[in-house]
Amino acid sequence: MKTDIPWQDRPEGNHDIMWRFDQNPIIGRYDIPTSNSIFNSAVVPFKDGYAGVFRCDNKAVQMNIFAGFSKDAVHWDIEHNPIAMQAGNTQMIHSDYKYDPRVVFIEDRYWITWCNGYHGPSIGIGYTYDFQEFFQCENAFLPFNRNGVLFPRKINGKYAMLSRPSDNGHTPFGDIWVSYSPDMKYWGEHRCVMKPSPFEDSAWQCTKIGAGPIPIETEEGWLMIYHGVINTCNGFRYAMGSALLDLVNPDKVLFRTQPYLLGPAVDYEMIGDVPNVVFPCAALHDFEKDRIAVYYGAADTSVALAFGHISEIIAFTKQNSL
Amino acid sequence: MKTDIPWQDRPEGNHDIMWRFDQNPIIGRYDIPTSNSIFNSAVVPFKDGYAGVFRCDNKAVQMNIFAGFSKDAVHWDIEHNPIAMQAGNTQMIHSDYKYDPRVVFIEDRYWITWCNGYHGPSIGIGYTYDFQEFFQCENAFLPFNRNGVLFPRKINGKYAMLSRPSDNGHTPFGDIWVSYSPDMKYWGEHRCVMKPSPFEDSAWQCTKIGAGPIPIETEEGWLMIYHGVINTCNGFRYAMGSALLDLVNPDKVLFRTQPYLLGPAVDYEMIGDVPNVVFPCAALHDFEKDRIAVYYGAADTSVALAFGHISEIIAFTKQNSL
Amino acid sequence: MKTDIPWQDRPEGNHDIMWRFDQNPIIGRYDIPTSNSIFNSAVVPFKDGYAGVFRCDNKAVQMNIFAGFSKDAVHWDIEHNPIAMQAGNTQMIHSDYKYDPRVVFIEDRYWITWCNGYHGPSIGIGYTYDFQEFFQCENAFLPFNRNGVLFPRKINGKYAMLSRPSDNGHTPFGDIWVSYSPDMKYWGEHRCVMKPSPFEDSAWQCTKIGAGPIPIETEEGWLMIYHGVINTCNGFRYAMGSALLDLVNPDKVLFRTQPYLLGPAVDYEMIGDVPNVVFPCAALHDFEKDRIAVYYGAADTSVALAFGHISEIIAFTKQNSL
Amino acid sequence: MKTDIPWQDRPEGNHDIMWRFDQNPIIGRYDIPTSNSIFNSAVVPFKDGYAGVFRCDNKAVQMNIFAGFSKDAVHWDIEHNPIAMQAGNTQMIHSDYKYDPRVVFIEDRYWITWCNGYHGPSIGIGYTYDFQEFFQCENAFLPFNRNGVLFPRKINGKYAMLSRPSDNGHTPFGDIWVSYSPDMKYWGEHRCVMKPSPFEDSAWQCTKIGAGPIPIETEEGWLMIYHGVINTCNGFRYAMGSALLDLVNPDKVLFRTQPYLLGPAVDYEMIGDVPNVVFPCAALHDFEKDRIAVYYGAADTSVALAFGHISEIIAFTKQNSL
Amino acid sequence: MKTDIPWQDRPEGNHDIMWRFDQNPIIGRYDIPTSNSIFNSAVVPFKDGYAGVFRCDNKAVQMNIFAGFSKDAVHWDIEHNPIAMQAGNTQMIHSDYKYDPRVVFIEDRYWITWCNGYHGPSIGIGYTYDFQEFFQCENAFLPFNRNGVLFPRKINGKYAMLSRPSDNGHTPFGDIWVSYSPDMKYWGEHRCVMKPSPFEDSAWQCTKIGAGPIPIETEEGWLMIYHGVINTCNGFRYAMGSALLDLVNPDKVLFRTQPYLLGPAVDYEMIGDVPNVVFPCAALHDFEKDRIAVYYGAADTSVALAFGHISEIIAFTKQNSL
Amino acid sequence: MKTDIPWQDRPEGNHDIMWRFDQNPIIGRYDIPTSNSIFNSAVVPFKDGYAGVFRCDNKAVQMNIFAGFSKDAVHWDIEHNPIAMQAGNTQMIHSDYKYDPRVVFIEDRYWITWCNGYHGPSIGIGYTYDFQEFFQCENAFLPFNRNGVLFPRKINGKYAMLSRPSDNGHTPFGDIWVSYSPDMKYWGEHRCVMKPSPFEDSAWQCTKIGAGPIPIETEEGWLMIYHGVINTCNGFRYAMGSALLDLVNPDKVLFRTQPYLLGPAVDYEMIGDVPNVVFPCAALHDFEKDRIAVYYGAADTSVALAFGHISEIIAFTKQNSL
Repeated sequence: MKTDIPWQDRPEGNHDIMWRFDQNPIIGRYDIPTSNSIFNSAVVPFKDGYAGVFRCDNKAVQMNIFAGFSKDAVHWDIEHNPIAMQAGNTQMIHSDYKYDPRVVFIEDRYWITWCNGYHGPSIGIGYTYDFQEFFQCENAFLPFNRNGVLFPRKINGKYAMLSRPSDNGHTPFGDIWVSYSPDMKYWGEHRCVMKPSPFEDSAWQCTKIGAGPIPIETEEGWLMIYHGVINTCNGFRYAMGSALLDLVNPDKVLFRTQPYLLGPAVDYEMIGDVPNVVFPCAALHDFEKDRIAVYYGAADTSVALAFGHISEIIAFTKQNSL
Repeated sequence: MKTDIPWQDRPEGNHDIMWRFDQNPIIGRYDIPTSNSIFNSAVVPFKDGYAGVFRCDNKAVQMNIFAGFSKDAVHWDIEHNPIAMQAGNTQMIHSDYKYDPRVVFIEDRYWITWCNGYHGPSIGIGYTYDFQEFFQCENAFLPFNRNGVLFPRKINGKYAMLSRPSDNGHTPFGDIWVSYSPDMKYWGEHRCVMKPSPFEDSAWQCTKIGAGPIPIETEEGWLMIYHGVINTCNGFRYAMGSALLDLVNPDKVLFRTQPYLLGPAVDYEMIGDVPNVVFPCAALHDFEKDRIAVYYGAADTSVALAFGHISEIIAFTKQNSL
Repeated sequence: MKTDIPWQDRPEGNHDIMWRFDQNPIIGRYDIPTSNSIFNSAVVPFKDGYAGVFRCDNKAVQMNIFAGFSKDAVHWDIEHNPIAMQAGNTQMIHSDYKYDPRVVFIEDRYWITWCNGYHGPSIGIGYTYDFQEFFQCENAFLPFNRNGVLFPRKINGKYAMLSRPSDNGHTPFGDIWVSYSPDMKYWGEHRCVMKPSPFEDSAWQCTKIGAGPIPIETEEGWLMIYHGVINTCNGFRYAMGSALLDLVNPDKVLFRTQPYLLGPAVDYEMIGDVPNVVFPCAALHDFEKDRIAVYYGAADTSVALAFGHISEIIAFTKQNSL
Repeated sequence: MKTDIPWQDRPEGNHDIMWRFDQNPIIGRYDIPTSNSIFNSAVVPFKDGYAGVFRCDNKAVQMNIFAGFSKDAVHWDIEHNPIAMQAGNTQMIHSDYKYDPRVVFIEDRYWITWCNGYHGPSIGIGYTYDFQEFFQCENAFLPFNRNGVLFPRKINGKYAMLSRPSDNGHTPFGDIWVSYSPDMKYWGEHRCVMKPSPFEDSAWQCTKIGAGPIPIETEEGWLMIYHGVINTCNGFRYAMGSALLDLVNPDKVLFRTQPYLLGPAVDYEMIGDVPNVVFPCAALHDFEKDRIAVYYGAADTSVALAFGHISEIIAFTKQNSL
Repeated sequence: MKTDIPWQDRPEGNHDIMWRFDQNPIIGRYDIPTSNSIFNSAVVPFKDGYAGVFRCDNKAVQMNIFAGFSKDAVHWDIEHNPIAMQAGNTQMIHSDYKYDPRVVFIEDRYWITWCNGYHGPSIGIGYTYDFQEFFQCENAFLPFNRNGVLFPRKINGKYAMLSRPSDNGHTPFGDIWVSYSPDMKYWGEHRCVMKPSPFEDSAWQCTKIGAGPIPIETEEGWLMIYHGVINTCNGFRYAMGSALLDLVNPDKVLFRTQPYLLGPAVDYEMIGDVPNVVFPCAALHDFEKDRIAVYYGAADTSVALAFGHISEIIAFTKQNSL
Repeated sequence: MKTDIPWQDRPEGNHDIMWRFDQNPIIGRYDIPTSNSIFNSAVVPFKDGYAGVFRCDNKAVQMNIFAGFSKDAVHWDIEHNPIAMQAGNTQMIHSDYKYDPRVVFIEDRYWITWCNGYHGPSIGIGYTYDFQEFFQCENAFLPFNRNGVLFPRKINGKYAMLSRPSDNGHTPFGDIWVSYSPDMKYWGEHRCVMKPSPFEDSAWQCTKIGAGPIPIETEEGWLMIYHGVINTCNGFRYAMGSALLDLVNPDKVLFRTQPYLLGPAVDYEMIGDVPNVVFPCAALHDFEKDRIAVYYGAADTSVALAFGHISEIIAFTKQNSL
C-alpha cells in the first residue's frame, strides 16, 4: 500500500497557513558526491513510493537534472549521474544546461519540463515511463523562458503549460503565461495569466512571479502555488504564494494571495549560494486528509519541505486576495 | 499587364552591390495627415499593381499599420485609418500597438506578420484576401519577440517563420531563429539560424541581427536580406546584409555577407527620429530581369528604396561570406 | 506703442496647429562671442519692447543665464556677460551653474526661475525690476529638480510653481508637480499634476514631461505648454504638447494633448549638440489677435520660434485629449 | 516615577564606544500577527513609560507604521492595526506606504515624520498628543526624499528638518540636508549639511548617508547619529556613525566620525531580509547618567538596541573626526 | 624642396583660435574601395612630401590601419590593403583590430602607436623606416587602454608615452597618463597627467579626456592637443582642447584650456556614424610661419583639417587655463 | 628548527581534495584594536617561524596592510599600525589605499605586491629584508588592475607577474595575464594566461578569475591556485580552483580545474561583510610531506585555512581539466 505523503501537524502556537518540516533541509547540498547544491526539484508518487527529478549543480557549477527515488518522499536516493536523454518526438535537442525541473503524470507517462539551455534559457520537455529511460522532445518555446509548468491534464482537449517569458540574464521582470498544444510539439494560444503586483499592494511579488508545483485541480479552481520576487537593495528575495485559476480558462485568475504563504526566515533559507530564496517546484497532496507537502529550494542550496491543509490554503487565498 | 517593379540602373562610377533610388525617400514622414513618420513597411504585387502594409506612427507616436496601394510601387496611396482587424483563427487578440509589418502571399491569401503589443512585443499574424478585410490570428510566440518573417511557401509541409527573440526594452542582443507550424496557430521546432558576428569579424552586425524582407527562393538557397546592428557610443546603427539559407533546412546558413550591403550614409538615413538606421522590411524581385528592389525604413522616419541585381547579390554573398 | 509679438501666418497647405518661423533659428549658437550654444531661453514684454533671460553655454560648456533686449522679440541683443546676482530674500546662494530660465511678471517685478546647480540641480529663484539689477532668493526646493515654472499670478493667495522632481543624472522619469508658497521663500502643498503617459497611448511623452512657458490664463483654464520625452534606442527625443489646468486647482488636468504640437523634424531641431530636441521655455501671446509665439530651444543649440492661434490650440487640446 | 531608559554596562573586555544589548533583537520579525518584519522604528518617553511608532511590514510586504507602548522601553506592545491618520493641517494626503518613522516631542505634541509614498517616496509629517489620535499634515518636500528627521526644538524660530534627497529606486547617492519651516507646512532655506566621504577616507559612509535618531542637544552641538552606506560587490552595507552640528547653524558640521560606531557584525544584523544593515532611527538619553540607548533596525528584519555614554561618544566624535 | 604644410588664413570675421579648412572633409568615407569610413588618422612629413597611417574601417566594419602618401598633405593616396606587419622586437603579436593610429619620427625611424585589439583594447607599437615595411613590437601596456601617443624625443633618456587607461566598453571615464620605457619594450614609471574637469568648470571635458597628436616641443612646454568628452543625454560629444606640459616632467600640467578650441558644429562633424565627434590624431606644424594644421576625425566618418597659429594657441592656453 | 606548516589530516568521511581547518577562522575581524575586518592576507616562512602581510580594514573601512609574525603560522601577532613604506626604486608613490597583499621571497628579499590606490586600483610593489623596514617601488602597471602575484623566481631571466586587468568599479569581467620585467621597474611582454570559462562549462569561474597565492613550482608545472567568480542574482560568489602552467612559458595553461576546490559553504564564508567569498592569497607548502596549507579570506571578514595534499591537487587538476 502506498506510503502517506510527508506530514507534520502545525506546531503549537503557530498560526501560519503553511509551516516548515522540522527536519529541513531534507536534502543537503552535498548529498551526492559531485554536487555543489541540490535544490529546486520535483517529486511525484511512483509505484509504491516516490520518484523525483532533482536539480543538482555539480562542483563545476554545471546545472543538470538527476533521477531519484524514495519510499517516504523524505529520504531520497538520488542517482549519481545526470539523466541521459534519448530523442523523443524529434531529433535530439542540444542542451547546454538543465535546471528547475517539474514532473507530472498525464495519461500514460511522466512528463518532465525544465529550463533548457539552448542558445539561451528555454523550456525543455521530456517524458519517461519508468524513471529509467528518458526521452527529450522539442523545446516548447523560443528563448528566453523559465519555469515551464504543465497542467496535470488536458484542458479543452489540449495540453496546457504555464511559463514565464524572461530575458537572457537575471531577469528583473516576469509574468505568468499559459500556452496550449495539441501534441506537446507545437504550442500556441498564449495568454497572460497574471503579472507582478504593484509595489504598494504586495511588494513581495512586485518584481517577477513564476509558477511552482504542478497546479492542483480543486473544486475552487486550479490551485497554483507560485513564487514572487522583490528586488531589495541587496538582491532578489523569493517567497511563495498561491492562486486559484479558472478550471476551464486558466488565464482567468479567481483569487491570488496578497500575503505570501512562506518567505525566507530561517537559516537554510537566508544563507546559501543565493541568500533569501524560497522556491517551490513540487507538491504532494492528499485530498482525503486535506494535506499538502510543498517541496522548495532553499537559498539555491538545499531542498526543504513545508506543509499545509489544502482547505485552509484555498480559504486563505480567497479571503486574502489581491 | 503588370507594371514592372521599381528600378534604376546602377549609377555611373558606383561599384556597390546595392544602390539607392535617386527619388528617396519615396514616402515622407507626413505623407498621411496624422503621421509623425512612415517607415519599416511592406509591399507585394497585387492585382495589376501593388499593395502594401505601412507602419505609420501618428503624432501621438502610437504605432499602427495601414493599408496602401500603388500602380508603380513608388507612388503610394496610404489609407488614412489603420487596418481594422476582425477575428481570424481565434478570438480577437488584444493589441497595444502594431509595427514593422511584413506581407507575403502563400497559397490563397496574403499573410501579414508584425510586432504586436500584447503584454510586451510579440509576433502578430493576420491575413487578407483583398487588402480590404483583414483577419487577425493567434500570436505566433510568447513575448518578447520582434521581426517575425514568414517564408513564402511551406517547407516540409509546414509554415515556417523567422523571428528574433528579444527582451522588453531596446534589446542589446538578438539572434535569428526559425520556427514551424502545421496550421499558423501552434508553433514549434524552434532552431537558431544565425547569431551576431564577433566584433572583430564584422562589427556592423555584432550587437543583434533580424530578418528583413520575405526570403526569396533561389537555386542557391533562400536569399534572406537582414539587418545588423552595432552599438556605438552614441547609439545603435542599423545596416543591411544578406545570407543564403538551405532550402530544405533553413536553419543551415550557407553563406552570409561579412560586409554590409547598404549602411546609413545619406542624410535621410543619418538624420531623423532615430539616426543611422537602414531597416529593410520588403523586397520586390524580377528574376527575369535579375532585379531586386528593397524597401527600407530610413532613420525610423521615412521609406526608401535600394536596387540590386539578384545574381550579383548572391555572388557577393558567396564570395564575401563570414 | 507696443510692438506686436512676432508672427507669421500659417503657411499655405500647412494644416498643423503650430508652425515654424521661416527665419528660424532666430538666435544662433555663436551669437555672443563666448557662446557654444544659446537655447532654452525666456522672454517677456518689457517697456516698449522685450527683455529676455537667455541660456548661453560658453565654450567651456559652462551653463549660465544672460540678459537680453529686443525691439521686435525676434532680433536680440544679448549681454556678453552673465547676470550677476545680488542677495535677495536671503544670504547669497551658491550656484555651480544656471540653465533653462523662465521669466514672468507678477505684481511689481519680473521673477526668474532656473535650474540652479547647488549640490545638484534645484530650482533657483530671482527677481529684477529692470533687467539691470538682479536679486537671487532662496532655492525653492531640495535637489533634484528641474523645470521650475511660476504661474503668472497668485492662486488662492499664494505663489504657485510647477516643477519636475528629477535625479542627479539624465533622469529617465519625471512628473509635473505644483507647489505653493506664501512668500517665495517657503514652499509646500506639493501636488502631482500629471505624469508621463503609457507608451501605447502617447509615446512621445512616455518617458518624462516638464512644464515649458509660463502658463497662460484663459477662460478654459491654465494653458500649459510642456515638453514630453520618448527614450528611443538612440537617445531622448523632446517634443511639445499642451494641457489645460483648472484655474483654481491647477493640479487638476482638464485636458491634455495626446498628439504633440511640434516635434523635431527640421535640421536645426534634429542636428546639434543634442539631436532631436524641441524644448519650449517661453511664449508671448496676444489674446486680441488670437496669437501665440512660442520660443523653444532647438537641439540644445539654438533658439527657434513657432506660432499658433490660441483658440485653435485650446480647441485642439480639448478635442485630442488623452 | 519614570522608568530608567534601557541600559547595560559595557561588557568586560569590550573597548568599543557603543555596544549591543545582550537580549537583542528586542523586537522580532513576527511580533505582531500580520508582520513579516519589524524594524527601523522610533520611541519616545511617554507618560510614565514609553511610546513608539514602529515600522511593521506585513506579510504582503506592505509598509506601514504602528503605535506601540512599553513600560521599560525594551518590552513593547505594538498595536495590531496600523495608525489611522486624520487630516491635520491640510486635506488628507494620500499615502501608498509609510516607513522608517521618527518621533519627537516639540512644544505641545509628538511629531512624527516618515517616508511617505506619494507618487514616490517623500517625507510625511504627522502629530499626536496621545498616541491614540494621529493627524497627518502636508508632506514636507517634493519626492524623492527619505529619512526626514526633525530637530527637537525650533532653531532661530523655525522648525528644522534633516532629510536626504533621493531618487525613485535604491538610490546609490545621498547627502544630509537641513530645511526650515515657520509652520510645519511650508519649507525652505535648504542647506547641504554633509555628504558621503571619499572612499579612501572613510569607505563605510562613501555611498550615501542619512540622519537617524532625533538630534540631541549638547553643549558641544547637536549630536546627530546617522547611517552611512558602502556599496560592496554584494550590495549595500549600512553602519552607524555620529556627528556634531553647530547649535545655531546646523548645516555647519563641527565634527564627524571617520570610523563607524557600530557596523553589522552579529547574526541578526548580517542575516535577514536585507543582510548587513544597522539602521538607527531613535535614541533615548539620560544626561544625568551619561547614557544613550540607540534603537536600530537590524537587517531590515528586527529591532535592536545599542548603548553608549554620551560623553564618550562626543569625545570620540571630536577625536576621530573626518 | 619641401612643400608647405596645409594652410588657410583665418576667415574674415572669424575670431576663433582655430578654424576649419574650407575643403573639409579632406578624406571622405568611401575614398578607398573597401572603406566604410576613414577617420582618426595620422600624418608626418616624409621625404619631399608626407606619409600617413590611416584608420579605414571596411564595409564589414573591421578596423585596420593603412599607409598613405601625399605631396601636399591634403590630397592623399591611401593604400587599398591594410599594413602588413612583420615581427619587430618580439614574436608576432596577435591583433584583432587596429585603430586610431599616431605616427612620430624618433631618432632613426617612424614609430606608430595604435589601439590594438589583443584580448581587449591595448596600445600597439610598431615602426617603419620607409612606410613600405612595418614592424610590430610588444604592446606597451596591459588592456584596457586607448590613445597611446609617443613624445617626439626621449625625455630624461627614456621613451615617453601618453595613454588613457580604459575599460572594455564605451568607457565613461578616462585620465591622461604618461609612462616611460628605456627600450620601447618594457614600460613603467606611470604618472597621472590630467583628469576630466569638474562639470561646473568645463563640461566639454568632464567625462573623459585623451591625448591627440604627438606633443609639440615649444619654449613654453609640450603643446598637447587633446580631446575631451561630455556625456549628453543623447551620447558622447568629443571636442578638442590644448594643454602645456612641463618639458622635463610632462606629468606636470602648466596650463590647460578651459574652453575647447574646436567643437562639433558643422554637418560633417555632427552627422555620421558617430554624431558630434571632433577627434584630433595628428598635427603638422611650421614654427617659422607660426602655423599648425591639425588632422581630426569627424563624426567617426571622415578626416578634416583645422588651422591655427602656434603662438596664439599657446597664449590662449595660458590665458584661459583651468 | 623550523616549525611545520599548519596541518590537519582530512577528516573522516571527507572525500574532498581540500578541507577546512577546524579552528577556522584563524584570524577574526576584530583581532587588532582598530580593525573592522582582517582577510585576504599573505604569509611566508620567516626565520624560525613565519611572517605575514595582512589586509586589515579599519573601522573607517580604510584598507591598509600590516605586518604580522607567528611561530606556528596559525596564531598571529599583527602589528597595530600599518606598514610605513620608504621610497624603494623610485620617488615615493602615493597610495590612497592598499589591499589584498601577496608576499614572496626572491633571491635576497621578500617582495610584496598589493592592490595600490593610485588614481584607481593598480599593482603596488614593495620589498623588505626583515619585515621591519619596507620599501615601496614603482607600481607595476597602469590602472586598473588587481591581484598582482609574482612568480617565486625569475623566468627566462626576468621577473614575472600575474595580474588581472580590471575597471574602476566592481569589475564584472577579468582574465589572468602574465607580464615580465628585467628589473622590477619596467614591465612588458604581456600575455593572456586564461579567461573565465563559458557558463555551461564551469559556471563558478564564468564571470572573472584572478591569481591567488604565489605559484608553486612542481614537476608538472607552476601550480597556480586562483579564485573564480560567478555573478548570481544576489551578487558575486568567489570560489577557489587550481591550474598548472608551463614552467617556461607560464602563459601556456596545461591543466585547469573544471570543478572548484573549495567554495563558500560554512557560516564564516557565507556570512560577513561580503557574503559567499573564498579568496585565497597565500599558501605554505611542504613537498616532503606532500602538504599545502592555503590561507584565504572568508566573506571579506576573516582569515581561514584549508589543507590538501599537493600530489592530489595536481592529479585532480589534470584529471578534471576544463
